[in-house]
Amino acid sequence: MTSRLFSFAGGDTGAWRVTSVRAVVGEPIAQAARLLVVADAVAGSEPPSGRVLRGITSNERYVVRSEKEQLLAKQQGLGRPEATCAVLIPIRKSPAWWALTQDERRAVFEEQSHHTRIGLSYLPAVARRLHHCRDLSGNEPFDFLTWFEFAPEHEGAFNHMLAELRATPEWAYVEREVDIRLVRDGG
Amino acid sequence: MTSRLFSFAGGDTGAWRVTSVRAVVGEPIAQAARLLVVADAVAGSEPPSGRVLRGITSNERYVVRSEKEQLLAKQQGLGRPEATCAVLIPIRKSPAWWALTQDERRAVFEEQSHHTRIGLSYLPAVARRLHHCRDLSGNEPFDFLTWFEFAPEHEGAFNHMLAELRATPEWAYVEREVDIRLVRDGG
Repeated sequence: MTSRLFSFAGGDTGAWRVTSVRAVVGEPIAQAARLLVVADAVAGSEPPSGRVLRGITSNERYVVRSEKEQLLAKQQGLGRPEATCAVLIPIRKSPAWWALTQDERRAVFEEQSHHTRIGLSYLPAVARRLHHCRDLSGNEPFDFLTWFEFAPEHEGAFNHMLAELRATPEWAYVEREVDIRLVRDGG
Repeated sequence: MTSRLFSFAGGDTGAWRVTSVRAVVGEPIAQAARLLVVADAVAGSEPPSGRVLRGITSNERYVVRSEKEQLLAKQQGLGRPEATCAVLIPIRKSPAWWALTQDERRAVFEEQSHHTRIGLSYLPAVARRLHHCRDLSGNEPFDFLTWFEFAPEHEGAFNHMLAELRATPEWAYVEREVDIRLVRDGG
């Protein structure tokens, strides 16, 4: 069985060179020179702290069938040769978010914030993989890690997408967010 | 921070004596004399096999606000002195279930199968706690562990509830289910 667990280890190795680490809201994280992305990670005995983040790919929580079909039709995979820029965005949402029911979370996520619709308009330039952390151990520093890849000429569009998302009602529930920029240069 | 992670260890210790272990569908699990329920478990380096199951409490995935309010109004907590019977039901759902979108899963779960409505009609006699396993490591033997407690005189009602649920369209997606019966007798 293929593991769905990924780890993102800050250090001196890895194909991705860290160009900036910025705390958007809440506590910052430790800076590192490079990032090693490991697929099929093994769950650790403790939530890794500081320089290793981990998350697991899972079923989608909010999209409906019509949205999923649009995503599948437009999205491209990770690892495109021209996509030499990456951004890792760890996010933690507030207890108020997690106390909402499914219908309330969906309403904030899409009907009020148009999260999927905004994301769709930046496909296929921006490729993405979402990792969930909240249910790995109950004691993780973040709820989600989203990994984005795009070609350098699409960085402006990517920044515009982030600005749109960060202005939505959904982001009122984000209590910690870090923005880690990377370029692929071998390593 | 309180951990949401629980483990259920089959062995020779624990407050609960195992009275039966039955594979309802799919592969059986090892029999044990007693069950030790551990709150605030620490995530293991490997998915525990055989005699230890683990799961994590999380936000609800399907109930809407009106259903949640009915549940909160009627449900009782675990640990009632008279609730000396417990049942642990580990379940794994099929890949077809996890490939459904949120609206499709909700439709099967409630509009077609009335999962919450059936459960509500057995409150407050049956108390319950749901633990998620699927996103602990991506390599767990089950997707969910549900723990039920009730007084001996409600075992018939409990069995009737299980029969109702197992007859629903939702259960067509259950590919592995084990039914573990227990009584609390110190230990």
